[in-house]
Amino acid sequence: MAPSNDLANSILSGNRSALARGITLVESRRREDFHPAERLLSGLLPHCGNSLRIGITGAPGVGKSTLIEVLGMQLCEAGKQLAVLAVDPSSSVTGGSILGDKTRMDELSRHANAFIRPSPGGDTLGGVAGRTQEAVLLCEAAGHDVVLIETIGTGQSEVAVHNMVDFFLVMLSPAAGDELQGIKRGVMELADAVLVHKADGDLLAAANRTAQQCMLAMRILHSGDESPPNVLTGSSVKKTGIEELWQCIEREVTERRNSGALADRRSSQSVAWLDRTLQGALLADFLATPNAAKELAAARERVASGAQVATAAARAVLRQYREG
Amino acid sequence: MAPSNDLANSILSGNRSALARGITLVESRRREDFHPAERLLSGLLPHCGNSLRIGITGAPGVGKSTLIEVLGMQLCEAGKQLAVLAVDPSSSVTGGSILGDKTRMDELSRHANAFIRPSPGGDTLGGVAGRTQEAVLLCEAAGHDVVLIETIGTGQSEVAVHNMVDFFLVMLSPAAGDELQGIKRGVMELADAVLVHKADGDLLAAANRTAQQCMLAMRILHSGDESPPNVLTGSSVKKTGIEELWQCIEREVTERRNSGALADRRSSQSVAWLDRTLQGALLADFLATPNAAKELAAARERVASGAQVATAAARAVLRQYREG
Repeated sequence: MAPSNDLANSILSGNRSALARGITLVESRRREDFHPAERLLSGLLPHCGNSLRIGITGAPGVGKSTLIEVLGMQLCEAGKQLAVLAVDPSSSVTGGSILGDKTRMDELSRHANAFIRPSPGGDTLGGVAGRTQEAVLLCEAAGHDVVLIETIGTGQSEVAVHNMVDFFLVMLSPAAGDELQGIKRGVMELADAVLVHKADGDLLAAANRTAQQCMLAMRILHSGDESPPNVLTGSSVKKTGIEELWQCIEREVTERRNSGALADRRSSQSVAWLDRTLQGALLADFLATPNAAKELAAARERVASGAQVATAAARAVLRQYREG
Repeated sequence: MAPSNDLANSILSGNRSALARGITLVESRRREDFHPAERLLSGLLPHCGNSLRIGITGAPGVGKSTLIEVLGMQLCEAGKQLAVLAVDPSSSVTGGSILGDKTRMDELSRHANAFIRPSPGGDTLGGVAGRTQEAVLLCEAAGHDVVLIETIGTGQSEVAVHNMVDFFLVMLSPAAGDELQGIKRGVMELADAVLVHKADGDLLAAANRTAQQCMLAMRILHSGDESPPNVLTGSSVKKTGIEELWQCIEREVTERRNSGALADRRSSQSVAWLDRTLQGALLADFLATPNAAKELAAARERVASGAQVATAAARAVLRQYREG
């Protein structure tokens, strides 16, 4: 109990390395870490929930890190405590994010008010998202006012991130054609706001055109809503539009906080998180039984080739488990 | 074994009431029906997969039934065997669909080539969707060339339907403002085509405007794709645009069949169906243990109110199950 309490107190006092150790603990998959992690989180929970949670997604190359560097510096300079987390299920495969994190967000990473945490690395999706959500809570307990969660828009992680934030920002490049393809279908409609990035120099005109079109698209997709999501342009290089972006986010979130919509959203996010965790754990239990993973793989092949109906294959896989 | 074989043969011979009984069997939740249903499906599987599977979604009032009546009559008159299924998880609550089905699709329901099956009624979502998918297979074994699956666009059922069809049509009203609100976020981006319905009389101009805007939106959302989803206008009352809609669907599906994309889509749909069925069954097993449902409900409340972290609540609920 004691080390967990010590750690909790250090995190509450704003100790940076204690926060890092706490996140490592909740990210751990070692069985002996589960109980200390749970105790840590339970102890800190009354101190959580006070940050503005923002998700940022966009295809590789759109400039997420550059934006976070510039926006983050402005927030830190204004006295805010900022945490930046990354969800990138692919990073353990490529190993890219760890190297990348050393070179990017260079200035921000040295600021006293900023805490930057690279991706926990690849895992089953629910796992990464679940642990990122716990990392958010720890950052809040450590006193961070703003938590930015960065994800690439090409997998399922951006839906998971949408499910854990108060505000979901989708970033586009000026020549939207190429990289919209990389964003999973359905994600544009989840955006609380869209930022067309790199709106400077030769790309300014293209960025404005993309923003105009995107605004139309958003107006159509959200034509029943009171107000469609904002579509903004900005440049991290020229530092234009970043202030407006932040005002837009703060205004929206404040409105939702006052109307009670924010609290509702967080409640249902938490319940959905519980349900996903439960289903994930049940599946993990199942896959841990002898031969289950092998049998499921074989069943998937039978079903993919059209040799067996999916429900029959599921029942066949389950039969042994129930009898065992 | 024998009754199941008889039923299978009757279904294969195109006997309408045998098909209806077969669907009732696979929809049944009675334990003693599981094995006969599985045997029936396994026996029929080699005769399945030959239909064009089309999902149709849109908010209430957009005119789905009217369109299906007109499109369906054209297909039946052209000699096609048509099956119409409905996924509506809410129907058991309102009891509305059964009464509704008697008055709508009046002409079509009397056509010799048409088979119309009302919704199986409310259930957990996975359940309804799973059974609808099995009903599709039975319709195919019975020789239906086209299977239309209708769903209202307000819940999660339209994502489930998207996961079981070759082509997904989203219907809009001319004044898109009011009813887009009713379509779940993310669904517009799943559309393989959009039909702006009721494009006649006083609404024709509005329908054309809506279609123009929607076309723009689709072009933006799919700007990386080779060709964005088609946006069409049509009127079931004037019987305009229906022929074009059908040509669009046939052209798209033929292209995908030739490229192999259709087979790939069906394979991955089947594997995802297996995974969902498995997870649903594991959850059902869990909820069937004493007190599990009650404990989960209590955990959801604790989590919604912020009294407990979701992962901790999930572990607390699971602990008893694992020890039991």
